[in-house]
Amino acid sequence: MIQEAVQEVRVFAPATVANVACGYDVLGFAIDSPGDEIVVRHCSKPGLHITAITGDEGKLPKAAEKNTAGVAALDLLRHLGMTDRGIEMEIHKKMPFGSGLGSSAASAVAGAYAVNCLIGQPLTKKQILPFAMAGEASADGAWHADNVAPCLLGGIVFIRSNEELDIAQIAPPKDLWAAVVHPDIEVLTKVAREILPKEIPLLNATQQIGNLGGLLCGLIQEDYGLISRSLHDVIAEPRRQKLIPDFYKAKHAAINSGALGFSISGAGPSVFALCEGEESAHRVAKAIARVFDAVPLGNQAYVSRINPHGVHVVEEKGSAPRA
Amino acid sequence: MIQEAVQEVRVFAPATVANVACGYDVLGFAIDSPGDEIVVRHCSKPGLHITAITGDEGKLPKAAEKNTAGVAALDLLRHLGMTDRGIEMEIHKKMPFGSGLGSSAASAVAGAYAVNCLIGQPLTKKQILPFAMAGEASADGAWHADNVAPCLLGGIVFIRSNEELDIAQIAPPKDLWAAVVHPDIEVLTKVAREILPKEIPLLNATQQIGNLGGLLCGLIQEDYGLISRSLHDVIAEPRRQKLIPDFYKAKHAAINSGALGFSISGAGPSVFALCEGEESAHRVAKAIARVFDAVPLGNQAYVSRINPHGVHVVEEKGSAPRA
Repeated sequence: MIQEAVQEVRVFAPATVANVACGYDVLGFAIDSPGDEIVVRHCSKPGLHITAITGDEGKLPKAAEKNTAGVAALDLLRHLGMTDRGIEMEIHKKMPFGSGLGSSAASAVAGAYAVNCLIGQPLTKKQILPFAMAGEASADGAWHADNVAPCLLGGIVFIRSNEELDIAQIAPPKDLWAAVVHPDIEVLTKVAREILPKEIPLLNATQQIGNLGGLLCGLIQEDYGLISRSLHDVIAEPRRQKLIPDFYKAKHAAINSGALGFSISGAGPSVFALCEGEESAHRVAKAIARVFDAVPLGNQAYVSRINPHGVHVVEEKGSAPRA
Repeated sequence: MIQEAVQEVRVFAPATVANVACGYDVLGFAIDSPGDEIVVRHCSKPGLHITAITGDEGKLPKAAEKNTAGVAALDLLRHLGMTDRGIEMEIHKKMPFGSGLGSSAASAVAGAYAVNCLIGQPLTKKQILPFAMAGEASADGAWHADNVAPCLLGGIVFIRSNEELDIAQIAPPKDLWAAVVHPDIEVLTKVAREILPKEIPLLNATQQIGNLGGLLCGLIQEDYGLISRSLHDVIAEPRRQKLIPDFYKAKHAAINSGALGFSISGAGPSVFALCEGEESAHRVAKAIARVFDAVPLGNQAYVSRINPHGVHVVEEKGSAPRA
């Protein structure tokens, strides 16, 4: 088959909500926005060169082998024996660090996916997963697919095993919407992890397993009542809520406004609610935002369907036939 | 609507496999045999009278309010305000006590369901659940639906919450078969429960949650590979295996013979394997039985599809129209 030769490609990688209440470390979904954009193009100088980074307040390293997106792209090129290719990369961060919205995962996914598109798509999205994982691991030191996998593949992704990268995709129910609100504070993933106990009561594990299984059955069977009854986190939320001002006020506001459930997005400080229908999601997002406004705490609210596509190409330039 | 008046009804309630490796306290399925049979008929003397019990080696009480099947039936009659009805009950135990096959659940389900049939089916199967639960709780003191619910409803049943009796039914994959082997020893549920720790590592909880979710996705999506990769129990099996002679030998024999997975049925001592196809299930059952034969330990092997129906009427007598 003759592939199109692409000169330049711009991709968008969406924010993701990991954990999803009862799915600590095993469940995540993608939303429509915000997200990161990465542009890659061919150049004559061998190697991967990050030429510009915007939106990072100067925090991200330009050295490709130290940059999340760079590591992911280099890992993919190394796997394909193509590290001598000359590639320029621009990174446009469009979501805050430490937001609980999978910021580093989005950059890692965008980096690996953009380069794969530029070189003629030798790999499928699923095959890119380990390289994007390596990119994210370089940023936060952990090996978790609950942001990377939904960012890459879209929809709702369940991770049976992070070590084995064994995942299952779940088609989102048609009317399932998310209200996500990011309050302007930073929670370090490391701190949010250290706050969790090493041991938990077997009873809590059984409750969490019950809710996680209920959520999966509810999602697959489009049973919104079951989804709602299952959206409880008895492990991470009770410990991490203290990192988020007025968390329970926001939770009550969301539930009272009709949310199916409400919890922390990833390690926080972002919070999310799942809702049945767009109108409900807008109402819930406003109710949550009002609570943070009253703290007062600046915040950004996002209302989105579950994004079924994940990372995608926004623009391609200079396509021409290649032998 | 005019109901048929039934003079006598005989029902069969099947054995069930609870826990199903990674589904400790939240998952169970029904098999075709063995199972308990209960016969009920109208009589002139008010109240519920257990007139015969067979197969119990004289262990079960005949007083209805102390008997598992009797308690379930009385609880249902009380709910309906019908305790003054005259009903005779015969109980035919056809599976061993303390087998890990849901023996007391089968009696409880059969008792409540038989009486419901005799009085014109005022309740649906799902509505009978709490009364059957009460019957089983009178036998083992615990409130768990993982045997009662699949025995009643058939198929694979996931329990989000035992307290709320919130359950979801999962249609079994077409080619999913079970090989179940009962070795001739008794494990008391109480002992099997006490052997479990009160606290477990968070890491183990996450592994178990990953496997449980993987199993549900695999069952619903008919992905036998995912089912197989998910059939691991890191919580109960490592502790309870010591109650079953040569457990790991039996496990290796099952896996080497092509089983998708193998673990303890309920609290044991019965063990089960899930298999793709009938032929595979027969081969696996033989391999497991050979291990117990060599101990030497008498055993009974059962090969069965996942039973999709649960408790059902075997015979009705004396039907006549009723106003």
